[in-house]
Amino acid sequence: MKNSFFSRFTPQEPKFFPMLNKLSEIVVESSALLVADLRHDEPDKRADYYKQIKELERKGDTQTHIIFDELSKTFITPFDREDIHNLASTMDDVIDGINSCAKRISIYNPRPISQSGQELGALIEEGAGILCKAMKELETFHKNPSALRQYCDKLHEIENHADDVYEHFVTQLFEEEKDSIELIKIKEIMQELEKTTDMEERVGKILRSLIVKYV
Amino acid sequence: MKNSFFSRFTPQEPKFFPMLNKLSEIVVESSALLVADLRHDEPDKRADYYKQIKELERKGDTQTHIIFDELSKTFITPFDREDIHNLASTMDDVIDGINSCAKRISIYNPRPISQSGQELGALIEEGAGILCKAMKELETFHKNPSALRQYCDKLHEIENHADDVYEHFVTQLFEEEKDSIELIKIKEIMQELEKTTDMEERVGKILRSLIVKYV
Amino acid sequence: MKNSFFSRFTPQEPKFFPMLNKLSEIVVESSALLVADLRHDEPDKRADYYKQIKELERKGDTQTHIIFDELSKTFITPFDREDIHNLASTMDDVIDGINSCAKRISIYNPRPISQSGQELGALIEEGAGILCKAMKELETFHKNPSALRQYCDKLHEIENHADDVYEHFVTQLFEEEKDSIELIKIKEIMQELEKTTDMEERVGKILRSLIVKYV
Repeated sequence: MKNSFFSRFTPQEPKFFPMLNKLSEIVVESSALLVADLRHDEPDKRADYYKQIKELERKGDTQTHIIFDELSKTFITPFDREDIHNLASTMDDVIDGINSCAKRISIYNPRPISQSGQELGALIEEGAGILCKAMKELETFHKNPSALRQYCDKLHEIENHADDVYEHFVTQLFEEEKDSIELIKIKEIMQELEKTTDMEERVGKILRSLIVKYV
Repeated sequence: MKNSFFSRFTPQEPKFFPMLNKLSEIVVESSALLVADLRHDEPDKRADYYKQIKELERKGDTQTHIIFDELSKTFITPFDREDIHNLASTMDDVIDGINSCAKRISIYNPRPISQSGQELGALIEEGAGILCKAMKELETFHKNPSALRQYCDKLHEIENHADDVYEHFVTQLFEEEKDSIELIKIKEIMQELEKTTDMEERVGKILRSLIVKYV
Repeated sequence: MKNSFFSRFTPQEPKFFPMLNKLSEIVVESSALLVADLRHDEPDKRADYYKQIKELERKGDTQTHIIFDELSKTFITPFDREDIHNLASTMDDVIDGINSCAKRISIYNPRPISQSGQELGALIEEGAGILCKAMKELETFHKNPSALRQYCDKLHEIENHADDVYEHFVTQLFEEEKDSIELIKIKEIMQELEKTTDMEERVGKILRSLIVKYV
């Protein structure tokens, strides 16, 4: 079983690498828009960022389904198939999470986003950059997995950091915020931001399992 | 691999078609009850509709597990197995979504449901009808996929429409509703309604992947 | 296909049984902490219970990934692989649910938890005990499935009971609670408690499917 990923995958099916790459670039692009979105508080700007992010979400969806369709028409073992499927669908979940944040910012239209919210946005963007670098390792990690391993560690750290930021902020929010409707808005947006870093770490966990299997 | 779905599936295992049909009829039945439920505002009626929908939800659960058990005892490729499994479990998710709406209407007991809420209910019912017709195409779409393709397009349109109705309504709700407890109730019910159309579209995506694979 | 689970699994791969056992013991341990947590209302104690439960959640996560990695390195049919994978990941979901309850209790810091909340905690703990016993049946149920079948029935009963407790409580909460922020806190904690019993029942459903397949 060792190396079956590569013995079949490369050079027979190198097409999946650029496809996963392209998907990770959509994660990067949408996370950059989210970071900018979090800095604005005019309803029109928020609606506009959401519109742009929603377009990327659809692009991500299309790209994910191109990967799925290609998988369904390509002979590779069900085992490798599952790995590629999980990578694609979990990166798509990251994009969905980003879209879900932008959607809530636009339709709830809360007061300016706190420093903590912006920190979570920055962590999502950092994680997105790492996903993108990690996809570039897929073709070669079986020879040298150290870079990929570092990316997985980093995604784990980011998620832990996001957890701390989120929990600290929400504890304070419930102690101090007396406007219950504002509290509903901001709590849910912060939850979506934090969940998005969870999704990024989930990609990291899939990558880690590939190292176990194929190195 | 082409046509493996059918070469194995028909006539060897045509039993799965009526099973999936039956499940889709439970979707239709429960969506019709939900539409009626959304028109009432007396707590007793709402509790009664929830009770009826909950019974259907259990029936759906039983039917889904009949399909799973039958799959586990039938020799078909893991690949086709997965398709049937996904179709059944995602239709079950639609029924769960409908149940989840009815449950919240009953236990939160909000003010009369808005026009937008009733529109979402109507879209869910429309989607359910399409799922039911789509299941009837499964036996023959490899010869002529045009009807199935149209159903998938329609499910996608319905979801987009539901998205617009939801976003427009919630934007207004947060601008105008000052009663925060009422806002919590109605926001969550609208979210569940919208998520249910997402689930219906997800069935559409599975069907679309079958067209890619088997036509 | 009959008995493939065992013909391959025992004695070739008996290592998975103690691994699943160990995971179920983490469920038991964390549920006991949750029951204690639900009785306290000082923020420090709540934070402390959350810290302990979070450590167990990480232990559970590690144990789940040990199982996944072992699965990926062991030759067994994809079919049995899927069963073990689902059992592990769904027990991990139970632990995540317990962690999610403790997290919200700590960071939302609501008023003392109601009798109904404590009842849900007791049901989660009861379910955890049954999961643990059920794991001990995995090695032998193909000869005599009656104990395992009873555990599945019990998990189903517990979930139904939890549903009733939850719905009755939330109906009353929306009728009586006028403090909307307190309502947000307690509603979400009760939802997480109830969802945790759902996850336990989901393990029961996987076990029931094993009885269908292998007995």
